[in-house]
Amino acid sequence: MRDDETDPPGGADPAYGVYSYEGIATFAGLPFIADTAALEAARPDVAVVGAPFDISTTHRPGARFGPRALRALAYHPGTYHLDLEVEIFDELRVVDFGDAHCPHGMTERSHANIRARVNSVARRGIIPVIMGGDHSITYPAATAVADHYGWGKVGIVHFDAHADTADDIDGNYASHGTPMRRLIESGAVLGRNFVQVGLRGYWPPADVFAWMKEQGMRWHLMQELWERGSAAVMETAVAEAMDGCDALYVSVDIDVLDPGFAPGTGTPEPGGMTPADLLRAVRLLATTANVVALDVVEVSPPYDHAEQTINNAHRVIFEMLAGIAWKRRRTAG
Amino acid sequence: MRDDETDPPGGADPAYGVYSYEGIATFAGLPFIADTAALEAARPDVAVVGAPFDISTTHRPGARFGPRALRALAYHPGTYHLDLEVEIFDELRVVDFGDAHCPHGMTERSHANIRARVNSVARRGIIPVIMGGDHSITYPAATAVADHYGWGKVGIVHFDAHADTADDIDGNYASHGTPMRRLIESGAVLGRNFVQVGLRGYWPPADVFAWMKEQGMRWHLMQELWERGSAAVMETAVAEAMDGCDALYVSVDIDVLDPGFAPGTGTPEPGGMTPADLLRAVRLLATTANVVALDVVEVSPPYDHAEQTINNAHRVIFEMLAGIAWKRRRTAG
Amino acid sequence: MRDDETDPPGGADPAYGVYSYEGIATFAGLPFIADTAALEAARPDVAVVGAPFDISTTHRPGARFGPRALRALAYHPGTYHLDLEVEIFDELRVVDFGDAHCPHGMTERSHANIRARVNSVARRGIIPVIMGGDHSITYPAATAVADHYGWGKVGIVHFDAHADTADDIDGNYASHGTPMRRLIESGAVLGRNFVQVGLRGYWPPADVFAWMKEQGMRWHLMQELWERGSAAVMETAVAEAMDGCDALYVSVDIDVLDPGFAPGTGTPEPGGMTPADLLRAVRLLATTANVVALDVVEVSPPYDHAEQTINNAHRVIFEMLAGIAWKRRRTAG
Amino acid sequence: MRDDETDPPGGADPAYGVYSYEGIATFAGLPFIADTAALEAARPDVAVVGAPFDISTTHRPGARFGPRALRALAYHPGTYHLDLEVEIFDELRVVDFGDAHCPHGMTERSHANIRARVNSVARRGIIPVIMGGDHSITYPAATAVADHYGWGKVGIVHFDAHADTADDIDGNYASHGTPMRRLIESGAVLGRNFVQVGLRGYWPPADVFAWMKEQGMRWHLMQELWERGSAAVMETAVAEAMDGCDALYVSVDIDVLDPGFAPGTGTPEPGGMTPADLLRAVRLLATTANVVALDVVEVSPPYDHAEQTINNAHRVIFEMLAGIAWKRRRTAG
Amino acid sequence: MRDDETDPPGGADPAYGVYSYEGIATFAGLPFIADTAALEAARPDVAVVGAPFDISTTHRPGARFGPRALRALAYHPGTYHLDLEVEIFDELRVVDFGDAHCPHGMTERSHANIRARVNSVARRGIIPVIMGGDHSITYPAATAVADHYGWGKVGIVHFDAHADTADDIDGNYASHGTPMRRLIESGAVLGRNFVQVGLRGYWPPADVFAWMKEQGMRWHLMQELWERGSAAVMETAVAEAMDGCDALYVSVDIDVLDPGFAPGTGTPEPGGMTPADLLRAVRLLATTANVVALDVVEVSPPYDHAEQTINNAHRVIFEMLAGIAWKRRRTAG
Amino acid sequence: MRDDETDPPGGADPAYGVYSYEGIATFAGLPFIADTAALEAARPDVAVVGAPFDISTTHRPGARFGPRALRALAYHPGTYHLDLEVEIFDELRVVDFGDAHCPHGMTERSHANIRARVNSVARRGIIPVIMGGDHSITYPAATAVADHYGWGKVGIVHFDAHADTADDIDGNYASHGTPMRRLIESGAVLGRNFVQVGLRGYWPPADVFAWMKEQGMRWHLMQELWERGSAAVMETAVAEAMDGCDALYVSVDIDVLDPGFAPGTGTPEPGGMTPADLLRAVRLLATTANVVALDVVEVSPPYDHAEQTINNAHRVIFEMLAGIAWKRRRTAG
Repeated sequence: MRDDETDPPGGADPAYGVYSYEGIATFAGLPFIADTAALEAARPDVAVVGAPFDISTTHRPGARFGPRALRALAYHPGTYHLDLEVEIFDELRVVDFGDAHCPHGMTERSHANIRARVNSVARRGIIPVIMGGDHSITYPAATAVADHYGWGKVGIVHFDAHADTADDIDGNYASHGTPMRRLIESGAVLGRNFVQVGLRGYWPPADVFAWMKEQGMRWHLMQELWERGSAAVMETAVAEAMDGCDALYVSVDIDVLDPGFAPGTGTPEPGGMTPADLLRAVRLLATTANVVALDVVEVSPPYDHAEQTINNAHRVIFEMLAGIAWKRRRTAG
Repeated sequence: MRDDETDPPGGADPAYGVYSYEGIATFAGLPFIADTAALEAARPDVAVVGAPFDISTTHRPGARFGPRALRALAYHPGTYHLDLEVEIFDELRVVDFGDAHCPHGMTERSHANIRARVNSVARRGIIPVIMGGDHSITYPAATAVADHYGWGKVGIVHFDAHADTADDIDGNYASHGTPMRRLIESGAVLGRNFVQVGLRGYWPPADVFAWMKEQGMRWHLMQELWERGSAAVMETAVAEAMDGCDALYVSVDIDVLDPGFAPGTGTPEPGGMTPADLLRAVRLLATTANVVALDVVEVSPPYDHAEQTINNAHRVIFEMLAGIAWKRRRTAG
Repeated sequence: MRDDETDPPGGADPAYGVYSYEGIATFAGLPFIADTAALEAARPDVAVVGAPFDISTTHRPGARFGPRALRALAYHPGTYHLDLEVEIFDELRVVDFGDAHCPHGMTERSHANIRARVNSVARRGIIPVIMGGDHSITYPAATAVADHYGWGKVGIVHFDAHADTADDIDGNYASHGTPMRRLIESGAVLGRNFVQVGLRGYWPPADVFAWMKEQGMRWHLMQELWERGSAAVMETAVAEAMDGCDALYVSVDIDVLDPGFAPGTGTPEPGGMTPADLLRAVRLLATTANVVALDVVEVSPPYDHAEQTINNAHRVIFEMLAGIAWKRRRTAG
Repeated sequence: MRDDETDPPGGADPAYGVYSYEGIATFAGLPFIADTAALEAARPDVAVVGAPFDISTTHRPGARFGPRALRALAYHPGTYHLDLEVEIFDELRVVDFGDAHCPHGMTERSHANIRARVNSVARRGIIPVIMGGDHSITYPAATAVADHYGWGKVGIVHFDAHADTADDIDGNYASHGTPMRRLIESGAVLGRNFVQVGLRGYWPPADVFAWMKEQGMRWHLMQELWERGSAAVMETAVAEAMDGCDALYVSVDIDVLDPGFAPGTGTPEPGGMTPADLLRAVRLLATTANVVALDVVEVSPPYDHAEQTINNAHRVIFEMLAGIAWKRRRTAG
Repeated sequence: MRDDETDPPGGADPAYGVYSYEGIATFAGLPFIADTAALEAARPDVAVVGAPFDISTTHRPGARFGPRALRALAYHPGTYHLDLEVEIFDELRVVDFGDAHCPHGMTERSHANIRARVNSVARRGIIPVIMGGDHSITYPAATAVADHYGWGKVGIVHFDAHADTADDIDGNYASHGTPMRRLIESGAVLGRNFVQVGLRGYWPPADVFAWMKEQGMRWHLMQELWERGSAAVMETAVAEAMDGCDALYVSVDIDVLDPGFAPGTGTPEPGGMTPADLLRAVRLLATTANVVALDVVEVSPPYDHAEQTINNAHRVIFEMLAGIAWKRRRTAG
Repeated sequence: MRDDETDPPGGADPAYGVYSYEGIATFAGLPFIADTAALEAARPDVAVVGAPFDISTTHRPGARFGPRALRALAYHPGTYHLDLEVEIFDELRVVDFGDAHCPHGMTERSHANIRARVNSVARRGIIPVIMGGDHSITYPAATAVADHYGWGKVGIVHFDAHADTADDIDGNYASHGTPMRRLIESGAVLGRNFVQVGLRGYWPPADVFAWMKEQGMRWHLMQELWERGSAAVMETAVAEAMDGCDALYVSVDIDVLDPGFAPGTGTPEPGGMTPADLLRAVRLLATTANVVALDVVEVSPPYDHAEQTINNAHRVIFEMLAGIAWKRRRTAG
């Protein structure tokens, strides 16, 4: 017998396969790039980076398995966006740039590595897409992005059930409930360009909201989305975030979705967004603003069922990629 | 080494902890009160009572684990209501009054104990919040409340997929499909103050609806909520329930939610409410009417996933407490 | 002791029981009919047929257990439709006609058997309700229906996240991604009477949509439902499907629902319909058009939780039966 | 197209199918018999009866779904016993006699119906195999068997983690912790022919064991099986049970298995038997003694995973049938 | 209606209930003691302490929920040990001393608090039973015990799949793979009194075993248990551990069990002990040696099913308590 | 900020990570080789190949996800075998050679691709380790191995609950119940060198065993392992398989394990082997015979829990690699 493995025919990359479960699991079967030298050589438009870190969680951990799950367990049927009518990877070159190394139980080293790896992407003008990990990783990740685009020059739209603006929680200043405070205090992002969408429930307390107001932060409670609809709120949000900025960082805590759609997360809060609304909100940002980075955090696979949460997180990334692809095609056309 | 456990600092109650999973599991980490003498001494505003009883279920049992799950497994991040801007426990003193004892396999004794324990609360003018258990417990619980406020003087708003107004089911007159019939037949609650929200599906049959009509009952099918929206329907419902009454008992069968949000229940019926709508409906009642009691029933943890149903039930209670707190602050202010 | 099993009293059929979990599991406890001779004798209005076949799936299998699950695990509380106010089985005689035999691993034989068994139903003017199985079974099933009503004379309303109109997938022309292509190519159904509802996500690619357009097919993306609402879209859809046809085949891929409501399916796509909308869409078809067949496919019990998906599929069937019953009563009345 | 459903070929019964998941779910695909008249006509060797009753449980309920699960979800690959080299149904005629009707929430009526239905079998000299249900059903079931073979004439071998010989539990005399007390007190079975295997853990207390000793009961702790091996212990057990009796009732509480093998049960106790040992213990009884009845109880599907517990319970029944078949062939040969 | 809650009768403590799921969840329904003053007043024989800490895990986290699960979800049917014939709490006074406070994401503070709280117990001559938490907590816990009994005076029998004697893992010296190194290096425990049981698999590497040998440590691989049986190995182990010591600390990593019995753990290794063997090994230590402390660690509820792992951990504690009770009765008698 | 990702230090391969969940998921973090040219260049000792094919299953599918799960979800703590005292990858060079492409729903093409890819390995004298997929893949895989070592020159030891020697099942000759018949009929393997271990239960029927006997096959029922112990049986088995052969193919159907340890499989049969016994049986083959190929099949992740089955399958492979490594070191030394 000869070495006659002609199936699938030559065009298909034998490493990544035809089916979502076949071959080696990179994000969406995209080419894998291990180090910065290769990244420099490839110069893609977007690089996906994992941040498998979850020890800053106050309730259910497990988000360390988020990047692995997004690569290995998501179902991705195709790459043509039905509403935008765009073939994503015809317009964008995207790679999987592996994980920032997160030593277990060690916050400082893990955060430093995340900042370094995201910076390796952003400093080349490549859009980093960061797969968390818990929300504490937004502090090093967004700082790394601001390092490139300029401190105070990047707006943020932050989807979440929680504001994550506490000063500390139980003495922990690197908690997943504090990263937005760190970002604003550091000056990497200005409060007036920091917009939150989807807040609800019973936290943080009033004094934290007072601090947020002092910083000029804006937030849109789920109550407002319930009353005005998500489309109207998003128009407001994008205007607020981009007021004086030309670069947008988008941070999606998957718990902005109702736990019925995204059970696989650490601090679930009933009464959240639907996937239909969230995906269109992300799309609006991608097609309207200059998105320079995206993170999707708090996907905790041990609490997921039938990959519901994983697939929602995957589609948030795909929706962003599709929107950016659509915008580029339009600009190019 | 000395007895120097200074962490957490003195202000925190060492029994109940900082995290939802820490320490001894009372409802929301509230103080536990075991007997009526202590209740008399404490005279709180609200007392939470468990009714771990589930043998009246016609399909999936498991609700006996409801109170334990609401105490031990719910995630509760804070106590400041973001929409109402109220710190709940600044306004309300709430305790966990333990469980009514429900001997296994014995309906009559269990129901008698539930009635006695709820009455111990209500007779002191304390608002009982009853954690079921299956829906049959509403008969003893609401009767105990009427014992204090007067038979025929208490309105009921009842959220449910099912009317629970059958005369009997398979010969069982204490079934979880019959408690509302018992309540009305007994005279504890008048049919004309009994309002149902969320009914859908294929049960009960036409003759039961005929009986309901004869009693002057009102009901709002999910079809009506689908057409008019939950906010409009709730305005109607509260007016109907309070017509001639000044005290409102609210009964929430968690299966009023769509099973996508609340899988952990015994008789799931597709096509139900969203958590966003239910929580606001409960809030409306709390802030508008004089709520004197709440029960949340049919939470069956063996069928739950990632505490979805448990957290929804927990938030129904918190929403009620927040609404009452908001109203009291307003009245006091 | 005598043979005195008088409980339940004589009226109840001892085979099928009072509770959903009691006795022998036929669909909804309906009479079981094993062969065509008995079917001929019974001449019911509707016959439910299982198609336990799942090897044409491109991602998660398991739909072979769909018929068993719909019979054995669904919860069905009653038979009186609350919105339509119709007692279903007072108007319709419905039987369980067992399964088409699907030899494992063998597509051609399985499909042939499905076509034969559905035809045994349809050729007698009985409405077949087919429980899949993966979506590939719609090709033999709808062909069998067209065999009776006339090729090119049957319209289709097809609820799905995916168009299923690929020519082939990875060389497989009998894939669950290709049945609608086969149907239209064969001539059994005309493209212009083929209407799709709920499409979303990233598949199929542009060339497939071009082919669909050439055939005169119509489709309504989730985006359109998000903008216009499902009620308005359905009015359009029914008009399109019935344009020139008098018989309607309805095909419901359960993945048209958002995975939050229907996790138990093979190729989940976030951003789908709610059960409340889907059930009313099905109802509209049943009460408006001349529905001659229904299939409900892609229910994969290994991925379900707490029978969420199973119950949604069951209610799709019940909603259809109720709508037809209502229409017949009205026509008769 | 003709009614040409020739697949599977004529020999196969179209009702019950080739695969475990195909067709109508009777126990092992055996013929279904609904009433005593048909049973009288058929006169099988064995009749399987369900007892879907679980309200006497002290901890996790769910055993009401046991009979349904054993019929619908068990995997049964064949009928030829590899060790005994016997084709079971060549030697034995076995039918599925449906369920005793168990009205929800009503112990007395349920137990009466169980006794009546089991008696309908036993009084014809047919071996009843009862699928529980919680263990309280052994009292009516074994009494019904003793009604036929003579009170005090039937020995019992009882596999269980718990003795189930309490007088009452929390005032309940029909608890699943009390049936063996009721049986012995009634005189239906003599204490000296009552042998227990597999007891372990922390219940019942010393006074109950004292009562057991007074009755002449014998028990074999797991400690003894751990020391002597199950084969040696079983030889002792069968001798004890049959001392003065010629008929043996076997009661298998599935919790005699370690919870690692049988998680789907109500009161799990670590440190139990392995399936390999239990199946051979049952086989020894079947091939050695005159087994006249078997019950398998406490299978609680909501707590099962991947049908582990269900399949173990199914194999206990198959092992018993195979042993009886082997013995009959041998006697006949 | 009066305050007539006479059920259960006065003797029963209304706080903790009759059923495992009733009332407030302390460990086994034992009295709760919050602070050291109350502990000093009560002077029990044993105090159970939680250590909800899991950020030192190298793979699956979740053990922070271990103490909560052991209190709230374990099933405990009674308190009379069937093999030892001892009523545990007739001989021993045991209390639940709550949790050491473990600030999230902060190892040093958490470990300090664990050491302080365990020391508060041990310094009073009370036996601490520590519920982990990951295995890193054994370092502060066992040090706290040695603080009282004398450094170098306490032997350890350590059940585990892994030696946990690495110097560091990925730069982390407080990892759950390093606590035994820290203990021996510190001098709190001598290597020659450190005995390990159940090691297997592929870690640690050879140089770690070389270090262990240098310290005089002894270990018994699963291979040895497979060949010699656990009873014989345990006799050797107890002699080794007590050689020159009179006080024994027992540390049970629940992953010493095969994952088939204990799936709910972080680093599962196939080929482990059975519960029957482990419980008897613990019993042997309790009845033979002077056990002064016990920890049970690495119970990760998110990965558990049907409380299998939780119940095994609970029984390890009960077996230890029963053995100590038996020994005390014997000594006293 | 510079590209200063110095963590982990240079020695670590950034692609595959320190933790089991980090980086790109190849089998055990081994180097990935996509095509035969690279394989030719690398010339490793062992190459792992996936065969994601499951449509020949007669009951529960899902094994198509086996290779992905073994790569992405297994927990592998280290590489030093504690019993054999060998550092596996010091002795053996092992690579991940990706998957044979298995077009969905197409048996013939899938099997041809499996045979081609395994042959690409075996023809270079590299040991293929094939991760199934269902058991039908053993026919193309073992044939590919025999193509290199000579037809009739390769013995097989086959661990399984089922003989898989049917001629056909329901007309399917490529069923997962038939591969061993195909292998022997083809002449690739001689019946007298085909040894089966672990058979139990109720299938296949007597005539199949008669055929097996005619071929000179040998089999060792679980009954024999229960009586003689697995060590003794394995000594017999290896002698039988190697009688006249010098090359051994080992096929491990994970369902040879009891379902308590390996729930994630398609056709579970209670009463199977323990992991402790199976791992040592595999070790004996590796250290005694000249193993030239291994397959591990029927791992069905949708039915697994907490990676129990996945980890067992992973350890079967590791045990084989460790045994071969040990043997090579010994021979070399």
